[in-house]
Amino acid sequence: MAVQVSVIGSGAEHEGRAEEVGRLLAARGCTVVTGGGNEVMAAAARGAKAAGGTTIGILPGEGRDDANEWIDHVVVTGIGHARNLAVAASGQVVIAVGGSWGTLAEIAFARRLGRPVVVLEPGWEVEGGGIERATSPEQAVELALAHL
Amino acid sequence: MAVQVSVIGSGAEHEGRAEEVGRLLAARGCTVVTGGGNEVMAAAARGAKAAGGTTIGILPGEGRDDANEWIDHVVVTGIGHARNLAVAASGQVVIAVGGSWGTLAEIAFARRLGRPVVVLEPGWEVEGGGIERATSPEQAVELALAHL
Amino acid sequence: MAVQVSVIGSGAEHEGRAEEVGRLLAARGCTVVTGGGNEVMAAAARGAKAAGGTTIGILPGEGRDDANEWIDHVVVTGIGHARNLAVAASGQVVIAVGGSWGTLAEIAFARRLGRPVVVLEPGWEVEGGGIERATSPEQAVELALAHL
Amino acid sequence: MAVQVSVIGSGAEHEGRAEEVGRLLAARGCTVVTGGGNEVMAAAARGAKAAGGTTIGILPGEGRDDANEWIDHVVVTGIGHARNLAVAASGQVVIAVGGSWGTLAEIAFARRLGRPVVVLEPGWEVEGGGIERATSPEQAVELALAHL
Repeated sequence: MAVQVSVIGSGAEHEGRAEEVGRLLAARGCTVVTGGGNEVMAAAARGAKAAGGTTIGILPGEGRDDANEWIDHVVVTGIGHARNLAVAASGQVVIAVGGSWGTLAEIAFARRLGRPVVVLEPGWEVEGGGIERATSPEQAVELALAHL
Repeated sequence: MAVQVSVIGSGAEHEGRAEEVGRLLAARGCTVVTGGGNEVMAAAARGAKAAGGTTIGILPGEGRDDANEWIDHVVVTGIGHARNLAVAASGQVVIAVGGSWGTLAEIAFARRLGRPVVVLEPGWEVEGGGIERATSPEQAVELALAHL
Repeated sequence: MAVQVSVIGSGAEHEGRAEEVGRLLAARGCTVVTGGGNEVMAAAARGAKAAGGTTIGILPGEGRDDANEWIDHVVVTGIGHARNLAVAASGQVVIAVGGSWGTLAEIAFARRLGRPVVVLEPGWEVEGGGIERATSPEQAVELALAHL
Repeated sequence: MAVQVSVIGSGAEHEGRAEEVGRLLAARGCTVVTGGGNEVMAAAARGAKAAGGTTIGILPGEGRDDANEWIDHVVVTGIGHARNLAVAASGQVVIAVGGSWGTLAEIAFARRLGRPVVVLEPGWEVEGGGIERATSPEQAVELALAHL
């Protein structure tokens, strides 16, 4: 079983950095887990595939067709926003890139379950142990992989 | 159907204020929804019952025996931390009293679904629209009910 | 906390019997738990309210407005069909009236969690321990309450 | 994205047939999806790996260590038995081998979502459209793949 890292977030303005995070993770041999959707989720998966990596998409809906085209393995949960728990839990470490309320829920669930979280700036400002901040995709991946 | 207000949070040091929030909500005719467990959840339900109110507990486990003794109506979800989504969604407005990571997930889910949130200080510092801060149980309940 | 009995099922042709089940349960002091929707779910709640009882509706969607008008206490889960687990688990015993695939999932979950199930005929033919069959609403309620 | 087939079931006595189903699916290029646990779930994954295939395990708990050793990609859902919905939904077709109540819930969810189901005999006797029965692993896989 390969190391799995979840990349969470949203916001079209963060896609470039998310793609770089996905590329770097794949280059380091990690499988990239995302929520399978668009924007940051799609960019991270696209980056991982560009580097020859493997991707998992954990979807909220009831059909597989909602997955973006860079997803290798699709999990159709049917549980809506509660799938955010599965996205957070399925990474051994979590990297947040941008994001709104759903991302905050994933950060909180990740910490609740003891998964380390790296927030790539600019991103959610969350107080509390187990959350590190990075200023570049390279640093985010380095901080994340240092936990493994 | 009565107005339903979710009271979320944790931490034994916040029980007194949670009990007062529950009491005030019941006095205003609201049903108090919580996660059904201990500390803040139990205190809010205890306060509601002391004022003759009604309580709903939404449990994470698979049995009803985990509910605290002040729960009138128990929902056994069996979905672990994903029940936090149901707790946030089942209130027309949400009041947070203390709390740790699970509470932060509930605040995030509440906002994701458009439920107004009132944080009783001291509590989670969360940036973003739709979150108000109160300095007393009275003010928290006033701010919450103003949304209805 | 009152005794809670879940009434599950679907099919407009079963509404009359579901309403009678709801009425009889309420007359015996039980709170009626359903999925909160239409047909059998609405009929059981309507019967319970006609007899002065209390009802809980556990909804699959993200809003409370989907609840039928006979629901007193509404739980908004946001988890789609996975809410069937909560409907099955929240009854101390389960009565099935008609129903399709979703009802079968609830019967299976109820048995998985050790909840006794009474199938009001005609209904799902399921082999396995812990499932009784009744030929009238009266018998269904008698068999169900005998477990408490 | 490869074709994904879910193999569901339980019971140590069914492991030989489950392993053969997994082997045949992998030989046909399908990714095998299971609940990630023991008995039938482990056997199907073991068979798939023996044939050089790929496996996904969708776990009910909060940690990845519960996955059997033949799982390539692990999804940690944290939602208990509600993960059965995700197991059923993540296959484009579902093959049932043995099984108890949890398997019946998965069959029901698969049909609720329109996924074809093949029951390898002996197995759950379920009336209703969309369910075929097979007398050998070879026939089960043939019937399943005919839907794709």
